[in-house]
Amino acid sequence: MAAFSEFRPLSDSALMVEYIKSTPALSSKLGDQFDDLDIKEVGDGNLNFVYIVVGSSGSLVIKQAIPYIRCIGESWPMTKERAYFETRALREHGHLCPDHVPEVYHFDRTMCLIGMRYLEPPHIILRKGLIAGLVYPLLAEHMSEYMAHTLFHTSLLYHTTTDHKSAVAEFCGNVELCRLTEQVVFSDPYKVSQYNRWTTPYLDGDAKAVREDNTLKLEVAELKSMFCERAQALIHGDLHTGSVMVTQVSTQVIDPEFAFYGPMGFDVGAYLGNLILSFFSQEGHANEENDRKDCKEWILRTIGETWNLFEMKFVALWNKHKEGYGEAYLPAIYNNSELLQLVQRKFMTDLFHDTLGFGSAKMIRRIVGVAHVEDFESIQDASRRADCERKALNFAKMLMKERRKFQSIEDVVLAIRDVQ
Amino acid sequence: MAAFSEFRPLSDSALMVEYIKSTPALSSKLGDQFDDLDIKEVGDGNLNFVYIVVGSSGSLVIKQAIPYIRCIGESWPMTKERAYFETRALREHGHLCPDHVPEVYHFDRTMCLIGMRYLEPPHIILRKGLIAGLVYPLLAEHMSEYMAHTLFHTSLLYHTTTDHKSAVAEFCGNVELCRLTEQVVFSDPYKVSQYNRWTTPYLDGDAKAVREDNTLKLEVAELKSMFCERAQALIHGDLHTGSVMVTQVSTQVIDPEFAFYGPMGFDVGAYLGNLILSFFSQEGHANEENDRKDCKEWILRTIGETWNLFEMKFVALWNKHKEGYGEAYLPAIYNNSELLQLVQRKFMTDLFHDTLGFGSAKMIRRIVGVAHVEDFESIQDASRRADCERKALNFAKMLMKERRKFQSIEDVVLAIRDVQ
Repeated sequence: MAAFSEFRPLSDSALMVEYIKSTPALSSKLGDQFDDLDIKEVGDGNLNFVYIVVGSSGSLVIKQAIPYIRCIGESWPMTKERAYFETRALREHGHLCPDHVPEVYHFDRTMCLIGMRYLEPPHIILRKGLIAGLVYPLLAEHMSEYMAHTLFHTSLLYHTTTDHKSAVAEFCGNVELCRLTEQVVFSDPYKVSQYNRWTTPYLDGDAKAVREDNTLKLEVAELKSMFCERAQALIHGDLHTGSVMVTQVSTQVIDPEFAFYGPMGFDVGAYLGNLILSFFSQEGHANEENDRKDCKEWILRTIGETWNLFEMKFVALWNKHKEGYGEAYLPAIYNNSELLQLVQRKFMTDLFHDTLGFGSAKMIRRIVGVAHVEDFESIQDASRRADCERKALNFAKMLMKERRKFQSIEDVVLAIRDVQ
Repeated sequence: MAAFSEFRPLSDSALMVEYIKSTPALSSKLGDQFDDLDIKEVGDGNLNFVYIVVGSSGSLVIKQAIPYIRCIGESWPMTKERAYFETRALREHGHLCPDHVPEVYHFDRTMCLIGMRYLEPPHIILRKGLIAGLVYPLLAEHMSEYMAHTLFHTSLLYHTTTDHKSAVAEFCGNVELCRLTEQVVFSDPYKVSQYNRWTTPYLDGDAKAVREDNTLKLEVAELKSMFCERAQALIHGDLHTGSVMVTQVSTQVIDPEFAFYGPMGFDVGAYLGNLILSFFSQEGHANEENDRKDCKEWILRTIGETWNLFEMKFVALWNKHKEGYGEAYLPAIYNNSELLQLVQRKFMTDLFHDTLGFGSAKMIRRIVGVAHVEDFESIQDASRRADCERKALNFAKMLMKERRKFQSIEDVVLAIRDVQ
C-alpha cells in the first residue's frame, strides 16, 4: 500500500500529488484526473499538514502527522504515530455514527497519512460559525447523537470485558497525546509554565489566583486521575468546537488524534465547555449591527438540549442493548425496571458531574493556559476581551468546585445567566 | 531455556523431576542432587499443579498453570498464560518489597511454569493459622509494608504516564482472570447462578435477600465498574488470607496470578475483608479449651493497625517521592504543605472507602458465591456455621451500603464489635 517506502513530510503540494498518483485508493477518488486540481494547505491546527484537493471528478483531504507540534516547532516533539490512532478512532466512530464522521479512504502508517472525505462548502468549523454569530438548529440533535453512539458503544455497557481490555491496551499506545492533554489541561494552568499566557495585564491577578487556589487544585487532581486511570470508553479526546464542521444540515466530527479509552465526561465536557466559552465571548463580538442576544439564547438552549438529548439517547441505547453482550450490568442482576432506572439515574448523574468537571477544566485552560480559543482571541480590544474571559474563568472555577451540587443542565444554564 | 518444546501438564512427579534436571536454573537450586528428593504435590488451590521439592542441598517450588479451573474440571477453561502475569507480578512486587515476596528462580512461558523459593516450615498459610487461633504479632507491620510499597510504586504517584500506560497495556492481557473475578465477586452472588452455594437451608433466605437487594446491587455495580475501568496500580488481585504464608517472624505474599492494573482498594479490601471473615468465624471454633477471645481481639487490633500503618507508610512514600517522576501530583502545583496534606487526606479517604467497598464485596461472595473460605467451612455444625456466616454477611451488606460514612478504621472495628 505504501507509496513511499519511508516517512517523508509532504511539505509541498507537488510531493503530495505524487503521493496521490501512486495510491489507487486516493487517485480513484479524483477520477484519476490530475490536470486541474485545486490544492489548499489548510493545517491551521498545530500538529499536521492538511491538504484539500479538489478536482473536476472528485475531492479528498490528505492529513499527515509530523513528528512535532507545528506551532511551536521541532522543540516540542510529538509522535507521528498519532495518525494511526486518529484513523482507528475515525473508523470506529464512523462505523458507530456514520452520519457525523467523515469517511476514511486510505491510511498509510509509514507516512502517517490519512486520506479522507473532503467536507465540501458550505461546511465550516463550528467555532468560526459561532464567532460569526451563526446558529445551527440541528447541532444539538447531531452532537448528542454522535456522543451517545460513540461513547455508549465503546463502553462496557456494550462491550464484553475481553473486547474492552484489548481495545484499551491498543489505545494505551497513544500515550504521548494523553500526556500532552495532561500537561496543558490539568497541569500547566495551575503552575508557572513558560507556555501559559493570558490577556495581560488585565488577567495577571486572575491567572495568579488560579495558581494559588488550593480548592481548585484539589478538584483538578481528581479530574486528572480520572483522565489518566479510567478507561470508560473510546473518547475523541479533543472534542472542542474546532473539531466539528457544520452546515445548516450537516455536522461532522473530525480530528480524533487524541483518542484513547478515557472517561466519557471528558468528551461531553470539552464540547459543552467550549459552547460556554463561546457564550461568554459573544459579548465581545456584539456591535450595533448585531447585539448577539439571539445567538446567546440559542447557545444556552443548545447547551441544555445537547445534554438532555444525549442523556435520552444514551439511556435509550442502554435499554435497547440491556440483554446484549455488555458486561457492566447483567440482565440477570438488574432484572427489574425500578432497579434498572436506579442504576441508570446514578450512572447519568455521575457522568453529568464528570462532564461539568472536565468542561470547567477545559474552559480554564483556554484562558490561562497555552492554547487559547479564537472566540476570545478575535476580540480585538484587550480590555473588553479580558472582561469576557474573566466571566468565563470565574464561572468555570465555580463550576469545578460546585459541580456535584448541580442537579440538571437547566441549573447550569441558570448559573451561566446569573454571571451577566 | 525451555526444557520441553511444547506445553505438557506435569501431572506426575517423575515428569516434574525430569523437567528440573534439564533446567540448570532449577537443578542448581537443588545442588544438582536428585537422589533423595522429597516431593509433595500441594496444589490445594483450584488452578494449578504445585510441587514442593526438597533435597539434601536445597529446595524449590514448581508451580504450573493448567488451562482450566482444576476444582471444576475442563468444563471451565482458564488461560494458562496467567503464569506469565503471575511471574511478572512476583518479580515486580518482589523488586519493590523483597522481604515479603518469594524469589522467582525460573519462568518458562511455553510450559506456563514458575520455579520459585520454597517457603520452608514453619511457614503456613495465614488462613490456616487464623483458623487454628494463632496470632502473628508482626503481621500488620509486614502486610502494610507489602501493600504500601507495591501499590504506591506501581501508581502514577511514582510512575510517569508513559511507564504506567505501557504496563497497563501489558496487563490487559490477563483479561481472563479479571473476567473470573468479575463473575464470581461482582456478579454471581447477586443473581441465580449454578455455581453459587451457601449453608442451606439456614441461609436460603439470606442468599435470596442479597439477590433482591436493589441498594446493594447499585453499590456493587459501582465497585465493578471501578474494578473494570480504573487502572490505578498493579494489584495482586486475590489478596486473601490464603495468599499469605506466615511464621511468627516472616510474612510472604504468594499467588498473584490475578494481577493487573486495577483499583488499590481491591487489594487492601480483599485482605481486610478476609480478616473480618476470620473474626466472624472464630465464634464457630471456640470451645472449652479456647474461647478465642484473645484471638478475636488480636484480629480486630490487626485490622486497625494494618490500615493505619498502611496509610502512614503510603503517605510517607508519597512525601519521600513527591519530587520524583510520578506525574499525578506535580510539585510545582502541589507546592505547599497545607495543600499537599489536603490532597493526601482526600486520596486516603477515597482509598479507605474503596477498600471498605471491595472488602465487603469479597466477604459477601465468600458466603453466598462459588468459592467459600475454610474459616467457615471448617465449622462442622451447619447451624453454628450459618450463624457466624449470617453475622458476617449482614455486616458486609451494611458496610457496602454505608461505607462512605466511616471516617476511620476504628469506626469499622467498633461496628464489627457491635454485631456481637
